[in-house]
Amino acid sequence: MSQDDKPSKSHGRLAIGASAQPRDLMTDRPDLAGAWTARVITLFPEAFPGVLGHSLTGRALDRGLWQLDPIDLRIFGEGRHRNVDDTPAGGGAGMVLRADIMGRALDFAARRGTASAENWPLIYLSPRGRRFDQSMARRLSKARGVTMVCGRFEGLDQRVIDHYGMEEVSLGDFVLTGGEIAAQAMLDATVRLLPDVLGNEASTEEESFSDGLLEHPQYTKPAEWKGHAIPPVLLSGHHGEIAKWRRQQSEAITRDRRPDLWDAYEARNTSDKPKKR
Amino acid sequence: MSQDDKPSKSHGRLAIGASAQPRDLMTDRPDLAGAWTARVITLFPEAFPGVLGHSLTGRALDRGLWQLDPIDLRIFGEGRHRNVDDTPAGGGAGMVLRADIMGRALDFAARRGTASAENWPLIYLSPRGRRFDQSMARRLSKARGVTMVCGRFEGLDQRVIDHYGMEEVSLGDFVLTGGEIAAQAMLDATVRLLPDVLGNEASTEEESFSDGLLEHPQYTKPAEWKGHAIPPVLLSGHHGEIAKWRRQQSEAITRDRRPDLWDAYEARNTSDKPKKR
Repeated sequence: MSQDDKPSKSHGRLAIGASAQPRDLMTDRPDLAGAWTARVITLFPEAFPGVLGHSLTGRALDRGLWQLDPIDLRIFGEGRHRNVDDTPAGGGAGMVLRADIMGRALDFAARRGTASAENWPLIYLSPRGRRFDQSMARRLSKARGVTMVCGRFEGLDQRVIDHYGMEEVSLGDFVLTGGEIAAQAMLDATVRLLPDVLGNEASTEEESFSDGLLEHPQYTKPAEWKGHAIPPVLLSGHHGEIAKWRRQQSEAITRDRRPDLWDAYEARNTSDKPKKR
Repeated sequence: MSQDDKPSKSHGRLAIGASAQPRDLMTDRPDLAGAWTARVITLFPEAFPGVLGHSLTGRALDRGLWQLDPIDLRIFGEGRHRNVDDTPAGGGAGMVLRADIMGRALDFAARRGTASAENWPLIYLSPRGRRFDQSMARRLSKARGVTMVCGRFEGLDQRVIDHYGMEEVSLGDFVLTGGEIAAQAMLDATVRLLPDVLGNEASTEEESFSDGLLEHPQYTKPAEWKGHAIPPVLLSGHHGEIAKWRRQQSEAITRDRRPDLWDAYEARNTSDKPKKR
């Protein structure tokens, strides 16, 4: 299902969903009808929007092209200190986020939207998950929104992951202090693919991974710098030659740096041209 | 070279390097002698420390266990608007960061430290680079510091990458609006490995990637939640059985989710045990 399937009543920040209740209108974050929404469950809601508040993603946020709804996990904690975690069953270092606390936060998040859970992925950010990539960013950008759960400490009780059928997604093969930076990275990659966010649509087509290759080198003025000249073909004005040179550079860099991407690229292209390796 | 090679004169935030000049002492960021330093060249210095200012990495920053030195690229721009970019040579969408402007910022960054460039990686954050992983985080944490260059737009003039021998590093196979979030992710993964940052040393030994396997599932109280019980072995008190169960879970999850990691793990262990696949 694409975003085009929903009625488009939104024309900016002030378009309020018809289903919004009076109490929504009183908050500083009215629900923008139809805008792609990132709901983030975190112990550090004040860390959002962070970098996402700047530049392209920040301008898109101001224009209401997407909205961000951080949910403070601490609110659902228990006792005087609003505890959210406890020691691992079976022993070991660190603390584990409790299933009952996270369950309450997830139920709250599900009630936040006026919309159903359809085409709304629920993601747990974890180094044990499937690695995030450009195709996942594309998939998320075609959803109606996403709910992301940021882990901290030694992780989240497995039962809550299983019970809600959470999709585990990893930013990469490294360990972060928490899921917040991973969420921001994934949201950045996703939001720039939303309609109207990038001014120049062409720029997502030429960049790395769009055709399975790494991007060719780029140059700009000055024509000479510290004795290094821009490759003459780029200044030739021959568009065909420039396109050919860039393609060759993309292929050479991908073959050299990322044999895994190169093999996949070649496998896709074997029907068009004979395999040379 | 390890961090132990340098004289350790620092005992906290207020320990100033003997080589600091009076003007350094007047800034709000005196150079902490010996502290691991992240120098970040960016158009959004105000986005730092961002998430890194919270939690574990934030407390470590406050304690002077590392320091952050964002350098505003805009300062080195030209003209009334301090331009830092220009159109790509050979045409195409977007803008490219200029070699001469970035060159000035890099020269400035190199002069910031009292130290030599030895064991101080210079990293350009780019989707065309080698993928960041836990072993790279470990390497960076053993350096004296790192300089990271955040790209924006269509990238950076290739000549400046070549001239300075910059190491291109990618956060993963996706495209971000800029390098800032990637820098924060890499710094988070690195800083938590610095000495004394993690309270409990044991917790880096058991987590994902430390032994080439994904981490086993975790559970905590309550013992039963929505009809789901904690696996009985974890409540048995038999440490040997618990360790064995966790190992089996780690292996099964890695085999199932990440055949690439599993193959590498098996290859390393063929000398110890017969290969079963």
